[in-house]
Amino acid sequence: MLSAIRAARQRLSPYLSPTPLVRRDALSRRLGASVHCKLETLQPTGAFKVRPAFNSVLAGLDAARSNGVVTSSSGNFAQAVAYAARELDVHARIVMMSSASAFKRDRTRALGAEVVDCAANFEARLQTVQRIHAETGALVLSAYNSPETVTGDGTLGLELLDQLPEAFCVVVPMSGGGLISGIATAVKELRPGCRVIGVQAAASPAWRVALDAGEIVTTSPNPSLADALQVAAPGDLTFPIVQRWVDDVVLVSEDEIEAAVRWLAVEEKLVVEGGGAVGVAAALAGRIDRQGLDLVFVLSGGNILPSALARILTT
Amino acid sequence: MLSAIRAARQRLSPYLSPTPLVRRDALSRRLGASVHCKLETLQPTGAFKVRPAFNSVLAGLDAARSNGVVTSSSGNFAQAVAYAARELDVHARIVMMSSASAFKRDRTRALGAEVVDCAANFEARLQTVQRIHAETGALVLSAYNSPETVTGDGTLGLELLDQLPEAFCVVVPMSGGGLISGIATAVKELRPGCRVIGVQAAASPAWRVALDAGEIVTTSPNPSLADALQVAAPGDLTFPIVQRWVDDVVLVSEDEIEAAVRWLAVEEKLVVEGGGAVGVAAALAGRIDRQGLDLVFVLSGGNILPSALARILTT
Repeated sequence: MLSAIRAARQRLSPYLSPTPLVRRDALSRRLGASVHCKLETLQPTGAFKVRPAFNSVLAGLDAARSNGVVTSSSGNFAQAVAYAARELDVHARIVMMSSASAFKRDRTRALGAEVVDCAANFEARLQTVQRIHAETGALVLSAYNSPETVTGDGTLGLELLDQLPEAFCVVVPMSGGGLISGIATAVKELRPGCRVIGVQAAASPAWRVALDAGEIVTTSPNPSLADALQVAAPGDLTFPIVQRWVDDVVLVSEDEIEAAVRWLAVEEKLVVEGGGAVGVAAALAGRIDRQGLDLVFVLSGGNILPSALARILTT
Repeated sequence: MLSAIRAARQRLSPYLSPTPLVRRDALSRRLGASVHCKLETLQPTGAFKVRPAFNSVLAGLDAARSNGVVTSSSGNFAQAVAYAARELDVHARIVMMSSASAFKRDRTRALGAEVVDCAANFEARLQTVQRIHAETGALVLSAYNSPETVTGDGTLGLELLDQLPEAFCVVVPMSGGGLISGIATAVKELRPGCRVIGVQAAASPAWRVALDAGEIVTTSPNPSLADALQVAAPGDLTFPIVQRWVDDVVLVSEDEIEAAVRWLAVEEKLVVEGGGAVGVAAALAGRIDRQGLDLVFVLSGGNILPSALARILTT
């Protein structure tokens, strides 16, 4: 898989620049460690999802140019696919549940994608994607459970290895597990002294539950400020990768996520969404065992509603 | 002066890393230009002021280590001097008017500096600095009107030249004029095809007034969201440099500054204070003549009150 991640990096390089890795002074003092943050918030569309989106479209570019692409997402992956498709002259259809916010719909449409509505349940979403695929031949893109996703995500790990000379402890938000799988593969194979720790909202603990059970189990996620991390079950592609490479998966409360979003905005001058802030939340709560290594937080996205950020800033 | 800027860069390199210069996609589309932002918001203490602070303390380090340093500021320079002094094992005294907010006092004290109060007028502030200098021999540091300040600020210009290969139009917030003087000196001498444009709040238009008059005149600044840019008159050191090198100075309204702070937080995921956002404000208002060049905005600081940012995000 490492060679596929290297190939993905090569493939993405005309479209995406490496994101900055910045040392944060206030956080370093607060945590008593050398702390760097990886600013995926500064990607086009405000989240790391452009990595898997570009990699998935580019991997099937001829088919995509002929028949378009289709995916289901109401979040960051929707905008990322819309952006990548526009840059690559590909027609994108995004299936969204009728419950998705007007805000997300508008953002996705503004990037040139066609938004297709479906009923507000996961089965309807899946069926709508399959129907569009059958009718149009559009390339179906997965948000996390495909090799192209994991290898696209892994490019972030290669960047970290270039940006830091020594072993580090990288803390990664977990949803479907694509991001941490890609990062862990790159980092652990190339610099085995590194640690990789995943963080989920306690409201959506599918990975922690499944890892404890030793098998993929389905859970019922509750609403969370970390809406981008909502997941019912680990992916079957990512589960064994996480079992093999990830050192620990920890959970954070809603209050802890809010505190991290506030810290990042007030002290570090970074707008980070709930799902992007869970790593910092875990560390501020004293829940990251870094084993003496320098810390790296992957700030995976910044697409928080302005009203939600305003509320957090005034509480 | 260019060789002094190069020397300053050498001197600062153990203490400050170059700040990221990041391409911003949404702003590029909005302005129909290639747009980069220079993230001084990510400096320790959240503003570019650590550049002149370190450079000033390092230039007189032996005296500073013996007798400390003293300066007057209730804003970003106070925290920057406190930070640099702490890193360099120097005692710092910061004179603040009794009108300065508890927030700024606490932040400065938290960095280890001694805060000395004085009456709420500029004369009392000056006299207090002079008294402390006479009593203790402390090195007096100027926030903008000293060679060490301008050359420290100029290091930002050298970084831009390294980070971009072609001529660009750089847009710089103006207060005392140290930052734009340093940047303009470096950029114009080394890459004459570049443009340098300064921006002030219309509430505090000292530079625009003085440049129109052809001489330093004193004005009465009004309150502004760009509180860091409050200035009554250009410095006598910086005025001729700005006359020589700066292509234009434009003004922005309070509404335009708010719109820029909002855009930067919502679209670019960056927390920027009013004074740091005036360049983007001018561009969004159609007031920057870039003459076909790529745009660079210097986001000079991020120290906005959380409550002020919250208000802007909800209006």
